[in-house]
Amino acid sequence: MESIIIYLPVIMALIGLAYMAVKRSWVLKQNAGDGKMKEISDYIYEGALAFLKAEYKLLTLFVIGASVALAAISFIVPTTHILIVVAFIFGAFFSALAGNMGMKIATKTNVRTTQAARTSLPEALKISFGGGTVMGLGVAGLAVLGLTTAFILLFQFFMNGSWTSTEDMTIVLETLAGFSLGAESIALFARVGGGIYTKAADVGADLVGKVEAGIPEDDPRNPATIADNVGDNVGDVAGMGADLFGSYVATVLAAMVLGNYVIKDMGGAIEDVFGGIGPILLPMAIAGFGILFSIVGTMLVKINSNDAKEKQVQGALNVGNWVSIGLTLITCFALVKYMLPETMQMEFFGEGLKDISSIRVFYATVIGLVVGGVISSVTEYYTGLGTKPVLAIVQKSSTGAGTNVIAGLATGMISTFPTVLLFAAAIWASYAFAGFYGVALAASAMMATTAMQLAIDAFGPISDNAGGIAEMSEQEPIVRERTDILDSVGNTTAATGKGFAIASAALTSLALFAAYVTFTGIDGINIFKAPVLAMLFVGGMIPVVFSALAMNSVGKAAMDMVYEVRRQFKEIPGIMEGTGKPNYARCVDISTKAALREMMLPGILTIGFPIAIVILGKLVYGSDNQLIAEMLGGYMAGVTVSGVLWAIFQNNAGGAWDNAKKSFEAGVEINGEMTYKGSDAHKAAVTGDTVGDPFKDTSGPSMNILIKLTCLIGLVISPILGGHTVDNGVTNQEVEVQMQVESTDLAQAVVTYTTTINGKATTQERRIKGTAQEVKAQLEAIEGSASKPGAKGEKVVIDKIEIRK
Amino acid sequence: MESIIIYLPVIMALIGLAYMAVKRSWVLKQNAGDGKMKEISDYIYEGALAFLKAEYKLLTLFVIGASVALAAISFIVPTTHILIVVAFIFGAFFSALAGNMGMKIATKTNVRTTQAARTSLPEALKISFGGGTVMGLGVAGLAVLGLTTAFILLFQFFMNGSWTSTEDMTIVLETLAGFSLGAESIALFARVGGGIYTKAADVGADLVGKVEAGIPEDDPRNPATIADNVGDNVGDVAGMGADLFGSYVATVLAAMVLGNYVIKDMGGAIEDVFGGIGPILLPMAIAGFGILFSIVGTMLVKINSNDAKEKQVQGALNVGNWVSIGLTLITCFALVKYMLPETMQMEFFGEGLKDISSIRVFYATVIGLVVGGVISSVTEYYTGLGTKPVLAIVQKSSTGAGTNVIAGLATGMISTFPTVLLFAAAIWASYAFAGFYGVALAASAMMATTAMQLAIDAFGPISDNAGGIAEMSEQEPIVRERTDILDSVGNTTAATGKGFAIASAALTSLALFAAYVTFTGIDGINIFKAPVLAMLFVGGMIPVVFSALAMNSVGKAAMDMVYEVRRQFKEIPGIMEGTGKPNYARCVDISTKAALREMMLPGILTIGFPIAIVILGKLVYGSDNQLIAEMLGGYMAGVTVSGVLWAIFQNNAGGAWDNAKKSFEAGVEINGEMTYKGSDAHKAAVTGDTVGDPFKDTSGPSMNILIKLTCLIGLVISPILGGHTVDNGVTNQEVEVQMQVESTDLAQAVVTYTTTINGKATTQERRIKGTAQEVKAQLEAIEGSASKPGAKGEKVVIDKIEIRK
Repeated sequence: MESIIIYLPVIMALIGLAYMAVKRSWVLKQNAGDGKMKEISDYIYEGALAFLKAEYKLLTLFVIGASVALAAISFIVPTTHILIVVAFIFGAFFSALAGNMGMKIATKTNVRTTQAARTSLPEALKISFGGGTVMGLGVAGLAVLGLTTAFILLFQFFMNGSWTSTEDMTIVLETLAGFSLGAESIALFARVGGGIYTKAADVGADLVGKVEAGIPEDDPRNPATIADNVGDNVGDVAGMGADLFGSYVATVLAAMVLGNYVIKDMGGAIEDVFGGIGPILLPMAIAGFGILFSIVGTMLVKINSNDAKEKQVQGALNVGNWVSIGLTLITCFALVKYMLPETMQMEFFGEGLKDISSIRVFYATVIGLVVGGVISSVTEYYTGLGTKPVLAIVQKSSTGAGTNVIAGLATGMISTFPTVLLFAAAIWASYAFAGFYGVALAASAMMATTAMQLAIDAFGPISDNAGGIAEMSEQEPIVRERTDILDSVGNTTAATGKGFAIASAALTSLALFAAYVTFTGIDGINIFKAPVLAMLFVGGMIPVVFSALAMNSVGKAAMDMVYEVRRQFKEIPGIMEGTGKPNYARCVDISTKAALREMMLPGILTIGFPIAIVILGKLVYGSDNQLIAEMLGGYMAGVTVSGVLWAIFQNNAGGAWDNAKKSFEAGVEINGEMTYKGSDAHKAAVTGDTVGDPFKDTSGPSMNILIKLTCLIGLVISPILGGHTVDNGVTNQEVEVQMQVESTDLAQAVVTYTTTINGKATTQERRIKGTAQEVKAQLEAIEGSASKPGAKGEKVVIDKIEIRK
Repeated sequence: MESIIIYLPVIMALIGLAYMAVKRSWVLKQNAGDGKMKEISDYIYEGALAFLKAEYKLLTLFVIGASVALAAISFIVPTTHILIVVAFIFGAFFSALAGNMGMKIATKTNVRTTQAARTSLPEALKISFGGGTVMGLGVAGLAVLGLTTAFILLFQFFMNGSWTSTEDMTIVLETLAGFSLGAESIALFARVGGGIYTKAADVGADLVGKVEAGIPEDDPRNPATIADNVGDNVGDVAGMGADLFGSYVATVLAAMVLGNYVIKDMGGAIEDVFGGIGPILLPMAIAGFGILFSIVGTMLVKINSNDAKEKQVQGALNVGNWVSIGLTLITCFALVKYMLPETMQMEFFGEGLKDISSIRVFYATVIGLVVGGVISSVTEYYTGLGTKPVLAIVQKSSTGAGTNVIAGLATGMISTFPTVLLFAAAIWASYAFAGFYGVALAASAMMATTAMQLAIDAFGPISDNAGGIAEMSEQEPIVRERTDILDSVGNTTAATGKGFAIASAALTSLALFAAYVTFTGIDGINIFKAPVLAMLFVGGMIPVVFSALAMNSVGKAAMDMVYEVRRQFKEIPGIMEGTGKPNYARCVDISTKAALREMMLPGILTIGFPIAIVILGKLVYGSDNQLIAEMLGGYMAGVTVSGVLWAIFQNNAGGAWDNAKKSFEAGVEINGEMTYKGSDAHKAAVTGDTVGDPFKDTSGPSMNILIKLTCLIGLVISPILGGHTVDNGVTNQEVEVQMQVESTDLAQAVVTYTTTINGKATTQERRIKGTAQEVKAQLEAIEGSASKPGAKGEKVVIDKIEIRK
C-alpha cells in the first residue's frame, strides 16, 4: 500500500503537467493575430526572454555561491549531508523552470486573447484563463513533482525507503529543506527583482511619455512601453508564480517535518498501512489531490454571453475557485481519516503530551481553507472599487494630495486589524486542534489549490497585456472594451491574490518557525532573555528597512529609464511622428539591469542577517547553542510579525489608492458634485497612486519572500545549532533518566536530565549552586544515585561531566 | 544612614521645586508687553486654561472609573492592596499638576519673550529658556517628589520602614505601580489628546485661512489662530511633559522592582548601610541628583551677543546639556560604588546565578547615557536641515508630490535601521553587564537629566509662540527675526527631543517588561507556544491601528474646525477687514472637544486589549496562569517592538518632510537650479509636510504612551496572574527541594520543583507520563523520596497534589 501512496502525489503532479501540456498546445494553436499586433507581441515575448536570460546569469552565480556555502555547512555539521546542495540546485532549477514556462505562455497568450476579443468575449476569457491555467498547473505540478521526487530519492538514500527512526527521517527532511531553500531563493530574484522591474518600467514610461511628451499610455512611440508590458509579466506572472511555488513547497515541507515529530511524540514509530509515515505523507497527498481539483475548477470557468460584464466573469472565476476548494475540503476529511492514526500523541509546550484524534487535524485544515477565503474578502473590502474605505479616500482627495495620502496610509494601517486578528485566531485555533502540525496542515490545505489560485491570478496580467496590445495595434474600441472587462476583473483578482499570498507566506513562516524549533531541539524561545529580545527588535526592523530599500530602488531604476527614454526621443529621428523606430530592447535591457542590480542590497540584507546573528552569537556565547538558537528564533519571529504587518499595510494601502484613482474614471460624487478624470481631486488621487505603486507591486509583495526566506535560512542553519537527541532504544514501560551536565561554573551547575519514558524524551533541569566544593559534593551525590536503580526500575545514567571555568 | 538616603531624593526634588519657584517668579516679573501683544497672549493663556479645564473634567471621570476597576482588582487578588487606588490617584494628580504648571508658565513666558526680543536676543533666550526651565524642573521635581514620597509612605505602611523580605517589598512596589499607572494615564490624555488638538487646530487654521481666505499664518483675523497657538502648548509642552513624567516615574519604578529581585537573588536579604535596600534606593538617588545637575546645566545656557545666530544658541543649549549629563555620569559612578554591594548575585535566565560586581552596573548606566546622546544625533541626521536624507527628499520634490512622499516614507523607514540596532545593542550590553537591573538603570541614568531635556524641549514651542505673537501684534521685523532664531533652534531640539522620548519609552517599556516577568513569577515568555505567538502578532498590530486612528482623528477634528472658521467668516460682519472680532474661544472649544472625543477610541484600544487578553485567557485556559501571563507578555513584547518601530518611522519621516519643506525658504539647488518657496517642487514638499504633520505630532509621539501604558497595565494586572513564591525561610547552606504538582491529566503529570538553595529559588520540571495507574505509581514514588532527606540534608516536600480530569 505504502508504495502506491508515496508515488500518488507524483502521479497527480504528472497528470497536472500532462493536462497543462494539452492546454498549452491548445492555447498556442489559437490565432496569434497579424501585422502590428504580432509585432508588438513578439517584442514583449523577446523582452521577457531577455529578462529571463539576464536573471538566469545572475541566478547561476548565486546558486554556485550558495551551493559552496551549503557545502561548507555540510562539512562542518556532521548531521547535514552534502546532498543538501543537490536538493538546493534541484529546487532552484524547478522553480526557475516553472517561472520560465509561465512567462512564456503568458507572453504568448496575450496577443491571442486580443485576437479572440475581436470577435468574442467568452473566447477571449477562455484563452486568457487558459494561459493562466497553464501557468498555475505548471507551477503547482512542478512544485509537487520536484518536492515529492526529491523526498522519495532521499528517503531511499538515507532510509532505504522504509521507516527506521525519527532521527533518520530528520536527516532526510533537513536535506529536503535544501529544495525549499532553492525554490525560495529564485522567488527572491523573481519577486523582488520583478517588482522593481515592473514599477521602474511603469513609472519611467509614464514620467517621460505621459507627463513630458504628452502621449498616451501603451503608445508604441514610447520606447519604454514594451518594457512596461514585459514588466506586467515579470512582476505579476513570474513573481507571483515563484512566490506561491516557494510557499507551496515550504508549507508541505514544514508539515512533513512536524509530521515526523508527531511520530516521535508517539514513541518514535507508528504502525499504519503507509510504512509508518502516514503523518509525513499526508501533506503531500493533499497537495497532489489539490492539483486534480484545480483542474476540475479551471474547467468550470467559462461564460456564454458575448454581452457579459465584470460580474459574470468574476462569477465564473468564483464558481471554479469554490468548487476546487470544496472538493479539497471533502478530500482532506477522507485523507485525514484514512492516513492518520485515529489517535495521536502530540507534545504541547508547557502542557505536555496530549491525545489528539485525527478529526482534529481535519478541523485544522478547515481553518486553513476558511482563512484563504476570508482573507480575500477582507482584502477586497479594503481595496475594492466602491467600498467604504476606498470611497473615503476619494472624498479626502478633494482637499488635496496630502489628505489623500494620509487617508490611504490610514486605510492600509487599519486593514491590519481584521487581518492580524484572523491570522492570530487561525494560529491559535489550529494549534489548539492539533499543535503546530495542525498549523502546518492548515497552511497545506490552504495552499492545496495553488494551481487554481495562480490561474486566476495570472489571467489578470495576461488580459492587461491583451488590452495594451489592442491599444498599441489600434484595434476597434470594442476589442479594448472586451479586454477591459477582463482586465478589470483581473485587477480585483490581483488584489485578492495578494491577500492569499500574504496569508500563505504568514502560515508558511509559522510552520517553518515551528519546524525550526523542533530541528534545533531547543525547548522554546524565551523572549525574557535580553539577547533574544534584542534580536526580536532587530528582526522587527528588517522588513521596514527592506521595504524602504525596495522603494528607493524603484525610484533609482525609474530614473535610469527616464534618461534613456529622453535620450531616444532626442536622438532617434522621426520617433514622435511614428516614422522612426524606438529601441525597445535597450529599455528592456535597462530595466533588467537596474532591477537585478537594485535587488542585491535587499537580498544581502535578507540572507546576511541570520548568518550574522549566528556568527555574532558564536563569538559571544561560544558553544551555548541553545541561546544562539533562541536568538535566531527571536529574529525570525520579529521578521515574521513585522513582515506580515508591513505586507498587509503596504498591499492594502496600495490597492486602495489604486482603486480610489480608478473611481474617477466612471466619475464619483464628492460633496454632492460629480467629479471626473482631470479634476484636482483626481490629480490628488494620482499622487496617492504613485505612492501606492511601489507599495503594492514592489515592497509589499517582497515581504512574503523576506519572511519565508528568513525562516528557511534559519531552518537550514538550525543543524549547526541543535543536536539531534539520541534515541536510547528503551523499551516501553521502562523509565530511564538520562543525565547530562550542560554547563558547569565554579559556583554552579545546570544539570539537564533527558527523561525517556515509553520512548518519549522530555527534558528536566536541575540547578546546583554554591561554592565549587558544594557543587562538587552535589555532583557526587547525583553520581551516587545514578548507580542504583530507582522506583519502577528507574536508573540515572550520566554520560559526561564537563567542567568549565 | 538609611534615614538620610531615603529622604535624599525628596530633598533634592524640593530643592528643584524651590529653584523652579524662584525662576518662575523671575519670569513672571518680566515685562509682559502691552496692547495687542498682551491681548493675544491672554487669549492663548485662556485657551490653554480652557483646554485644561475640559481635560480635567474628562480626566476626573476617567480616574474615578479606573479607580473602581483597580479597587475591584484589589478585592479579587489577595496580594493587591486597596492602597493602589490611592497611589493611582496620587500619580494622576501629580502628573496633572505638573502639566498644569508647565502650560501656565509656557503661556505666560511666550509674550515676555516677544517683549524681550524687541531689544535683546540674549534676554529673549534667557526668558524663553527660563520658562522651559520652570517646566522641566516642575515635571522632574514633582515626579521625584511624588514617587519618592509615595514609596516612603508605602514602605512605612507595609514594612514599618525597615526591611523584612522581598515578598513584602514586592507588595510595596506593586502598590507603587499604581502611582506610575496614574501618571501614564494622564500622559495618554495629554499626549494623544494634545497631539490631536495641536494638529487639528493647525490644519484647520491653514486650510481655511491660508488656502481658502488667502490670509497669512498667525493672522489675528483667523478665528482658529489662537487655537493653533494654544495647540503648540497643549501638544509640545503639556504632551511632552506628561510623556517624560510618565517615563521618568516608570523607569525608576521598574529599576526599583528589579533591585528588589537582585536582593531576592542574593538570598532575600543583604546587609548595607541603607537598611538593606541599597539596590532599590539607587534609582531614586540617581533621579534626585539628576535634578540638581539639571539646575546646574540650565544655569549655563546663555549667550552674550545680540548678533548671535542659531549656532551660538544651539551651542549654549549643548553646553548646558552635556555638563548635566557629564555630572550625572560621574555621580552614577560614585552612587553605584557607594550604594550597591561590591558583588551581587543575579539570576540570568538559562544561565543561572552570576556574580556581578557593582562596577558593571555603572557600565550599564554609561550605556544609558550614551544611548540618550547618540539617539539625538541619529535623529538629527535623518531630520535636520541640510542633511543628506533631507536633501534627497528635496531633490525628489522636483518630480512631484508622489516622489516626495515616497522619499519621506523611505527616509523614516530606513532611519529605523541605526536606531533599532542602537537599542538592541543597548539592551543586550546593559543586560550582559547587569541583567535587567542593568537595563533599568541604563534607562534611569538616561532619564536622570529629564529636567534639562524638558527645559530644552519646552523652550521651542515658547519661542514659536513668541514669534506668533510678534506676527499677530505686528512688531518690527527684527523682533520676528530674533524669535525665528530661537524658533529654528527649537525645531531642532523638538526633533531630537522626540528621539530622546522614544529612547526613554523603549527602555522604560523593556524595564517594565522585565518587572512584569518577575512580578508574575513566570519562568520566561516562550513564543513557541502558539497562543503566545498569536498574541505577539496581535500586539504588533496594535501600534499600527492606533496610529491610523490617531491620524484619522486629526482629519475629523480638523474638519470640525474648518466648518467653524468658514461659518465665522460668513456670519461675523467685518471680520476680514479687521473691524469684526473673531470668536477665538469657540474655536478653542471645538478643538478641545474634538481632541478629547477623538482620543477615546485609541485610549480604549490601549487599555482594553490587555484586559481582553486576560479575560479571554481565563475563559479558555482557566487557572493556567502561567500560559495567560505568557500570552499577555507576548502581547506586551509585540506592542513594544512594533510601537518603537512605528514611533521612529513616523517621527523621523515627519521631521524629514518638515525640514525638506523648510529648505525651500532659504532656497535649494535642484538639478543645478536654485528653487524657492512657491515653486512646484516647494508645493510637492508642502504635500509631504501635510502627511508628516500628524506623523510627527500626533501618531508618532502617541506610540511612546501606547507602549509604556501597555506594559504598565500588564504590570498592574500581573498579580492576578502570578503568585508570589512563598519564602520558606530556609537558612543559608541548607538545600531544600520543594515540589508542587502543577497540572495532572489522566495520562500525565507535570511536576514543578521549586528548589531553594541558599535561599534562592529555582524551578525544575519533571514530567510523568503513561496511563493513570503509572502516573499514580510515579507520584507515590516521588512522595516516598520526599519523606527522606537527600545528600547534604536535601529533602523533598510536596505541598499539594491536584488531580484534574
